[in-house]
Amino acid sequence: MAAAMAGTDGPFTIGVDIGGTKIAAALVGVNGAVGPLRRVPTPAAEGAAAVLAAAVDLARQVGRDAAGTPVACGVGTAGAVDPAGRVTHATDTLPGWRGTDVRAAFTAALGLPVVVCNDVHAMAAGEAWCGAAADARDALVVAAGTGIGGAIVVGGDVVLGRHGFAGSVGHLPAARHLGRRCGCGAVDHVEAYAAGPAIAAEYAARTGRGAAPPLEEVAAAAAGGDPVAVEATDLAARVLGEGLATAANLLDPEVVVLGGGVVGLGDRFVAGVRAALHAAALPGIDRLPVRTARLGNAAVLAGAALLAGRVLTGRISAGRGR
Amino acid sequence: MAAAMAGTDGPFTIGVDIGGTKIAAALVGVNGAVGPLRRVPTPAAEGAAAVLAAAVDLARQVGRDAAGTPVACGVGTAGAVDPAGRVTHATDTLPGWRGTDVRAAFTAALGLPVVVCNDVHAMAAGEAWCGAAADARDALVVAAGTGIGGAIVVGGDVVLGRHGFAGSVGHLPAARHLGRRCGCGAVDHVEAYAAGPAIAAEYAARTGRGAAPPLEEVAAAAAGGDPVAVEATDLAARVLGEGLATAANLLDPEVVVLGGGVVGLGDRFVAGVRAALHAAALPGIDRLPVRTARLGNAAVLAGAALLAGRVLTGRISAGRGR
Repeated sequence: MAAAMAGTDGPFTIGVDIGGTKIAAALVGVNGAVGPLRRVPTPAAEGAAAVLAAAVDLARQVGRDAAGTPVACGVGTAGAVDPAGRVTHATDTLPGWRGTDVRAAFTAALGLPVVVCNDVHAMAAGEAWCGAAADARDALVVAAGTGIGGAIVVGGDVVLGRHGFAGSVGHLPAARHLGRRCGCGAVDHVEAYAAGPAIAAEYAARTGRGAAPPLEEVAAAAAGGDPVAVEATDLAARVLGEGLATAANLLDPEVVVLGGGVVGLGDRFVAGVRAALHAAALPGIDRLPVRTARLGNAAVLAGAALLAGRVLTGRISAGRGR
Repeated sequence: MAAAMAGTDGPFTIGVDIGGTKIAAALVGVNGAVGPLRRVPTPAAEGAAAVLAAAVDLARQVGRDAAGTPVACGVGTAGAVDPAGRVTHATDTLPGWRGTDVRAAFTAALGLPVVVCNDVHAMAAGEAWCGAAADARDALVVAAGTGIGGAIVVGGDVVLGRHGFAGSVGHLPAARHLGRRCGCGAVDHVEAYAAGPAIAAEYAARTGRGAAPPLEEVAAAAAGGDPVAVEATDLAARVLGEGLATAANLLDPEVVVLGGGVVGLGDRFVAGVRAALHAAALPGIDRLPVRTARLGNAAVLAGAALLAGRVLTGRISAGRGR
């Protein structure tokens, strides 16, 4: 299978992406090229041990696909991860995931060096190294889907933060004050307006429907000109753009990369985010490029694998790659 | 004079601090030890050329104080500085300063390699390398005085940002929405509540006085138990702490260092900032240490000199030290 990875030479790393609904793994070349993906549904309801076993098994299968022995394994996972590769925080999408020693399990099963990080940090590393931010040293990468995560890239490396929380743009204050409750318990955070479920809930509330529809339905309605769907998605774009302006004013990056399922709302949404960001940005930052992510699902795999390679070869210092 | 710098060996760098009211310069050892300061008032009213001439002259005097030839000169200045050492933005405290090629003037006058950066970035470098954040890799450093600036330290290095704006905590959104006008033109930024003049104006407005008193007078009144002064300073502490929580939630640093004239409001103010930050911080970040700056006026000199040394010796890559 490794032979199918055009343009890759040299050692391969196993990249793993553990999400709330699916687990994916693939071989990744030193240049970030991602081989054929293996995928399984995440057995979230069966608990953390089952999730971990499924992920380890997938990585093992991918390892057997390799022409030679992979040099390392990089794992991007939902939740916050400490420097030792243990999950310190996780949401209800992965019950019991908090406290799981992901690194120990992969290390024991694979007999390879393993680096574990948050999936959005991995995605950002992928986009920074071989995706939409490959030409930038400093970037802000956003993943807006069921929740809103983010990552800060400085000097080409992902900032992890003391607790692995760095880049949490979803919990930036919203510039609108409608009292929306965020998943973290606070009110009027960006995520409470611009995450997929929040957009769908806004649409449901404005139409008087009981249950929130899937985001795809709101997207289709907005694309078809439904004014309520347009209002709901425009509100989300404004709040996200204003929140990202706060981050951009603080970080002064070269580019903002927007990824995640919410980007599927389309060009009007992305343009709305960009316009709101520029309107609320300080002079000089008000023409900051806002691009969509380029690597799609492969970003987490590529980023986790590359991060593992950089940490293990010392290209990222202990202070950055903790 | 160099002999007076206990504990310093090896080459010296000239550190220069160009502020709105005074210019200071000193020899700085490789460990950040700062020698005796030379100081002159900033001839701001005479224009940028006079300011530059005064600063260059002071640096030359300091260079003559050295036992040997200094290896470099580091300049921290008010305003934003581009990678080439030219001032790209400045406030009215230094009329005409914008556009000044600080690096070219110092290089021509001293015949030494010169690195120029924003004064708060220099202060942060000083505090990060030999001050209140010396034990931390990642820090948020704040200078709250006439304006509110800040700096982000990641992996021990100051993040400059694409335009040299990184760390602008003064323009974070205030969590209070009283319509206060910020110096940048926007409303309800942190600086519009927590900068020295904003605190004094708040006190003046609440007491019905026409002109705002000096901040020292508000501090003395608050220390004496004047309830209006206490309210004005408590409001500033809350807004600053809440704004710093936004930055801390995004950056997940190891420590926040608080410096600048506003810290002179005393322990109640600093405790208020800390409490407001902790109350608005995400779980895990809600015990983030908040310390006061340790180096005082020497921080900018030490930081600018050390930054120059690191950039010139390649210890900071082009991407970080731009």
